[in-house]
Amino acid sequence: MKLAVLGPAGTFSHEAALKYDRNAEMIFVNSIWDVFELVEQRKADSGVVPVENSIEGGVGITLDALIETDQKIKKEIIIPIRHCLCGFGGIEEIREVHSHTQALGQCRNFLHSLNRETPVKTFQTSSTAAAAEEMAALKDRKKACLCSRLAAELYGLKIIMEDAHDEKNNMTRFFVINHADAEPSGNDKTSFAAFPQNDRPGLLYEMLEIFSKRKINLTKLESRPSKKKLGEYIFYMDIKGHMKDKLISEALQELEKDIRKIKVFGSYPKWDIEK
Amino acid sequence: MKLAVLGPAGTFSHEAALKYDRNAEMIFVNSIWDVFELVEQRKADSGVVPVENSIEGGVGITLDALIETDQKIKKEIIIPIRHCLCGFGGIEEIREVHSHTQALGQCRNFLHSLNRETPVKTFQTSSTAAAAEEMAALKDRKKACLCSRLAAELYGLKIIMEDAHDEKNNMTRFFVINHADAEPSGNDKTSFAAFPQNDRPGLLYEMLEIFSKRKINLTKLESRPSKKKLGEYIFYMDIKGHMKDKLISEALQELEKDIRKIKVFGSYPKWDIEK
Repeated sequence: MKLAVLGPAGTFSHEAALKYDRNAEMIFVNSIWDVFELVEQRKADSGVVPVENSIEGGVGITLDALIETDQKIKKEIIIPIRHCLCGFGGIEEIREVHSHTQALGQCRNFLHSLNRETPVKTFQTSSTAAAAEEMAALKDRKKACLCSRLAAELYGLKIIMEDAHDEKNNMTRFFVINHADAEPSGNDKTSFAAFPQNDRPGLLYEMLEIFSKRKINLTKLESRPSKKKLGEYIFYMDIKGHMKDKLISEALQELEKDIRKIKVFGSYPKWDIEK
Repeated sequence: MKLAVLGPAGTFSHEAALKYDRNAEMIFVNSIWDVFELVEQRKADSGVVPVENSIEGGVGITLDALIETDQKIKKEIIIPIRHCLCGFGGIEEIREVHSHTQALGQCRNFLHSLNRETPVKTFQTSSTAAAAEEMAALKDRKKACLCSRLAAELYGLKIIMEDAHDEKNNMTRFFVINHADAEPSGNDKTSFAAFPQNDRPGLLYEMLEIFSKRKINLTKLESRPSKKKLGEYIFYMDIKGHMKDKLISEALQELEKDIRKIKVFGSYPKWDIEK
């Protein structure tokens, strides 16, 4: 199986892709849009894209691409984001740390603790894995990067310090996307977006009532600007259940008929974080 | 009156500040945080901060600062974002366009229309007003910037083309912040955030029910990650009415008592976009 994944090798997307299928052939691409394109053009069987991080929030490009393409969510995967300080030297030798801007931000307190007479300098890279690739080429004991354990292994770096991130509850949720709907597993979620359409006061309440009166659990509600009008939102929602369940399909039909146009992105098994 | 405003002179924040008080003494600062700080330290009487754009969505720093400081919203101001191509040359002479990355993005189609044998090159600046300041210093007929009409006037640039933005419905909402609550005007809005607290399924529905059963109109609901746990959100909400109205204060009390801890940012007169 061919999997399109945000590259280079060793990104957290790669880590999620390995959780999905350890034996897949990975096709590393430069952007989230490229992942969607490769799946659309059937050059990859499936793609793995980040959708939401516990600190940074929703990933805009993925949310836009779900609306603009016809890919289905086949599976969700949630992984902890654990940054390691990696390189060749000892921790007291490090004078430069390279990584993606988010990783540098998420390890801010740890980086402060590395300061000696002069502060440690930080440098931004396009991804945490790109920083690891760079360190492997430089082999400089004074330079280190923040990256995943996987990236350290792939690029032959020593792990100088594990769990360098300040906030220990850092998780990212990924979607596996492809052409086909997933069959019911007995413990599913369904994701969709509801678009503005003759909106009126109380509309959101009426929307939620459709699910509440059927005792369908809403597990997520995220608003994003419609880009058309100030104060007009697209709501991204996740509910418990599969769209083939009678209760769910009735609710979605009522929503679309009476309140807002929707686009269903798919039903897929709920990920168990303890896994 | 001293007003703290995101600088340099000629930003859209400056334009909003002039709508608030044309005769105020403007103190231009480098960041949204600095605006809050100057007001907090009483070095400015009030501050003007962007809170939401119709295309880009919520302004994260402002939403965070409202929670982390004790400033009150005294007024909302909504202004249309109109980018002008400004410089010294004729439109056919322009080979370089400088501006903030969002302005360049919002004028993408227009910029394409300027391409001759070679494409027009774009350069990013820290703000649209900074680009105008730069153009004024260079006085190069081949270089132009995208900025507000106000910036063009302040820096003595010629307006080469008005309304260069592709999406004509581009608006930004600003808040005037200071220490004191605004008195009821008869047509007010109240803004608050509701924080995660022993969340359970159906919680958002119960929250909205509190307002719905009192026929209080919800004019905005925006979710932002709690930064603590994946899928846990802070909800930023705007409702119609003043917190001194009996109906509103009862609803907010019920919300806080039964469902979620809240922080009220203030009640202020609703801005009439047609103004």
